[in-house]
Amino acid sequence: MTRTLRELAVLSGGELTGDGGLTITGPAPIEVAGPGQITFVSNPKYAHFLASTGASAVIVPRAMDAPEGLAVIRADNPYYSFLLIVRAFFPEKPFLAPGVHPTAVVGDGVRMGEGVRIGPRVVVGDRCSVGDGTQLLPGVVLGDDVTVGKNCVIHANVSLRERVVVGDRVVIHDGTVVGSDGFGFAFEAGSYRKIPQVGTVVIEDDVEIGANTAIDRATLGETRIRKGAKLDNLIQIAHNCVVGEHTAIAAQAGLSGSTVLGRGVRVGGQAGFAGHLQVGDGAAVGAQAGVDKSVPDGIMVSGSPARPHREEMRAQAAARQLPDWMKEVRRLIRGLESKEKEPESTC
Amino acid sequence: MTRTLRELAVLSGGELTGDGGLTITGPAPIEVAGPGQITFVSNPKYAHFLASTGASAVIVPRAMDAPEGLAVIRADNPYYSFLLIVRAFFPEKPFLAPGVHPTAVVGDGVRMGEGVRIGPRVVVGDRCSVGDGTQLLPGVVLGDDVTVGKNCVIHANVSLRERVVVGDRVVIHDGTVVGSDGFGFAFEAGSYRKIPQVGTVVIEDDVEIGANTAIDRATLGETRIRKGAKLDNLIQIAHNCVVGEHTAIAAQAGLSGSTVLGRGVRVGGQAGFAGHLQVGDGAAVGAQAGVDKSVPDGIMVSGSPARPHREEMRAQAAARQLPDWMKEVRRLIRGLESKEKEPESTC
Amino acid sequence: MTRTLRELAVLSGGELTGDGGLTITGPAPIEVAGPGQITFVSNPKYAHFLASTGASAVIVPRAMDAPEGLAVIRADNPYYSFLLIVRAFFPEKPFLAPGVHPTAVVGDGVRMGEGVRIGPRVVVGDRCSVGDGTQLLPGVVLGDDVTVGKNCVIHANVSLRERVVVGDRVVIHDGTVVGSDGFGFAFEAGSYRKIPQVGTVVIEDDVEIGANTAIDRATLGETRIRKGAKLDNLIQIAHNCVVGEHTAIAAQAGLSGSTVLGRGVRVGGQAGFAGHLQVGDGAAVGAQAGVDKSVPDGIMVSGSPARPHREEMRAQAAARQLPDWMKEVRRLIRGLESKEKEPESTC
Repeated sequence: MTRTLRELAVLSGGELTGDGGLTITGPAPIEVAGPGQITFVSNPKYAHFLASTGASAVIVPRAMDAPEGLAVIRADNPYYSFLLIVRAFFPEKPFLAPGVHPTAVVGDGVRMGEGVRIGPRVVVGDRCSVGDGTQLLPGVVLGDDVTVGKNCVIHANVSLRERVVVGDRVVIHDGTVVGSDGFGFAFEAGSYRKIPQVGTVVIEDDVEIGANTAIDRATLGETRIRKGAKLDNLIQIAHNCVVGEHTAIAAQAGLSGSTVLGRGVRVGGQAGFAGHLQVGDGAAVGAQAGVDKSVPDGIMVSGSPARPHREEMRAQAAARQLPDWMKEVRRLIRGLESKEKEPESTC
Repeated sequence: MTRTLRELAVLSGGELTGDGGLTITGPAPIEVAGPGQITFVSNPKYAHFLASTGASAVIVPRAMDAPEGLAVIRADNPYYSFLLIVRAFFPEKPFLAPGVHPTAVVGDGVRMGEGVRIGPRVVVGDRCSVGDGTQLLPGVVLGDDVTVGKNCVIHANVSLRERVVVGDRVVIHDGTVVGSDGFGFAFEAGSYRKIPQVGTVVIEDDVEIGANTAIDRATLGETRIRKGAKLDNLIQIAHNCVVGEHTAIAAQAGLSGSTVLGRGVRVGGQAGFAGHLQVGDGAAVGAQAGVDKSVPDGIMVSGSPARPHREEMRAQAAARQLPDWMKEVRRLIRGLESKEKEPESTC
Repeated sequence: MTRTLRELAVLSGGELTGDGGLTITGPAPIEVAGPGQITFVSNPKYAHFLASTGASAVIVPRAMDAPEGLAVIRADNPYYSFLLIVRAFFPEKPFLAPGVHPTAVVGDGVRMGEGVRIGPRVVVGDRCSVGDGTQLLPGVVLGDDVTVGKNCVIHANVSLRERVVVGDRVVIHDGTVVGSDGFGFAFEAGSYRKIPQVGTVVIEDDVEIGANTAIDRATLGETRIRKGAKLDNLIQIAHNCVVGEHTAIAAQAGLSGSTVLGRGVRVGGQAGFAGHLQVGDGAAVGAQAGVDKSVPDGIMVSGSPARPHREEMRAQAAARQLPDWMKEVRRLIRGLESKEKEPESTC
């Protein structure tokens, strides 16, 4: 399948400079794109690639210059325009054939929507509900009383535990667990006694969750992942946490119990949060940060323990200078001490 | 189901102040509890919630004051009393119907105990033993020669590899792997050669392990998780490690090979341990700590590299002051130098 | 099964000192080895164990002394010699019976090699290819169009997503996911829009991957794990990353998108890498390091943010001294200030 550059400019909502009749064979990353391919630059720090790219065309921000002779589509959001072009070359298609595979095991009182696709070896517990158009890939296990909304894709070997609720258009990647017990034990008479974890987890619409992530059920009440939140792989979400709308969490980050992330928060990889914290709307958390205090709206924190990012940068700069600076201060003090002695001796 | 407050006071072993005839509809966390609900405060730092809670009754430590008009149960261990009350409202019930589901695949020479509940699509290898009352949830895989004790719950898609031994009353959450090969390779003639990992893993009685955790088998001998230990989600336990009795490890922590944690150790989330370390009984390790030396009994360490917690706190305080302090020292030295010059010039 | 020490010396390629007729019953770690057992010391820092070991024989480096009376095999690479001896006592054997288990679900157009062993409840998608001698353990799921080479072992509940390519002699441990979608979203009109992840993952020959690891497919093109690389448990490899030949990555480390590790790199546990970095051949990265810049060939970095290891060691030493040093500098400056005042007063 090929497209003309003009077609791509139209569907991506951008403004074309160059030969609209060019035949484009597909999209590619800028470092490896070759003749006939289209690529993009969104972040000015990668603009230097424009000079050397082998691509025939490139999508750039409205204000970005491009080398003579390179066909260009200028767009408000080049990354999003690129998304539309990738999708044009690679139309979405279902992972499974329609219907319920004969090797799937479906419990009593299950409500299956229209057009569901249930793969081999799926297990659906009693009284579950699976929405229209939803796909459950092989090895998925739904405990009793689970609800999954419409047009979801639940990938292989995902476990959705008893009573978990999943909204519409949710994607959950392979091996992820939703609704495992929260980590709560009372120490009594020499050993830990398990606090029953009788709450649940609610995953709202348009959430995407990566592979091998773990989201614990609430002790009481619910753990909640709000609309449009995006979670990467191998993330830990403890009991009673809330992840706000359109909040994005990178891989291997972890939240302790009852911590609440606001709306539009961005969390870097391997960051960790203590329990019972409030992280405000639009806050940002650096990779590997150790957040032990609540974070106000719109603030970026980094470091472990985490502090405002500017402060952390200043402290890192100071720490980097420290060994040399300690030497220098010793030298200066010694200099002063020896000068001290001179006048004394001359008196 | 409702209970009177008097009934709850009796079953929780606490002392009631207030109207024992109050009808209680259920337990709830203190921030969200409403009329008819019972909650608890254990840690004095959350005592301020008592003034604002909507709960009808609250369990508190013997010595804690409570506002006028709030019904109170005073108990030695309010968290444990709360546990008993939660359990009273939410009695435990099995996840599966009794017996072996017809889609389970059971190998040769398997010994199944009384009252087992083996779910759909479970695979049990040859010569395994499953104890009385144990539940294997859908998708669980037992390799050959695995032993699981009595009254265990092994959740969906857990893998217990060949020869692994699990005690009684053990709970393992979804997706966890026990007995994967240790990470051991000898570099020879330009490439890594795999050291055969021919040991095993022993999980003792009353252990609970979270979701998507990985516990490697020993190279030779055994990796061992001792009685009553509690492991959270996404934890790495390498070959030949030992986790002591009643030791608790929070999510995403990781132990390198042959490290031994003593009894009653507490490990914070995302902490990491080098190999071949000894961590003493009752030691504590802060979240995100990087432990590269053995830790004596009863000591708390934190930071990366980890050191005694007080020392780390002192060093963090110093590091926080550092940028301002460097400025100040520069100012003082400059002041001294200029004073130096004055007397010189007057001589 | 027993062996004489002479036999073991021959098969391990070492030079025997002591009674070659000794009967050896098996290998054991040095701390726990007893009479009749053979052990090894490779690292001189563990040489002190030689004095106290209960083993009857020990493999040591050519130049290492050993106590009088202990039978010794001297070898160029004692760890590798030990490997050969372990393998002699524990010959490798298949995990599964030959053939395709009747409960496996095999799609259309699948090419099965000679001597494959496909376990219960395995699902193989349409148009997959499984090489000669390869074993797929229970619960493994292959998406459509997956290729697995010869003599691989894919452990229980592993998911290899659509179009993933796996070479020969690859081992993947339980619960690992290869080919989940990269974490790429464009923010547009108030919410995240998913960038289609239409690339794939290529795992080359002789790679071993631990349990519950996640390797994302490329957005476009491929994520690639090169020949002989060894990955531990719970590792995150993001879209479009490359892991070089004979590179080893310890547990819980994570790579952000498009980062490239060279050949023979060693990465410590829980280390994290920002995106779009180049890590040179033979580089080494300390445990818990936070790598935010590219690393030249052969350099060791550590710390977070990571810097050359010597520099980090020097900075850590300075930071450790800092609280005491701040006190000392204050004392010296006060001393100088008071001396300043003295001559002034005498003038």
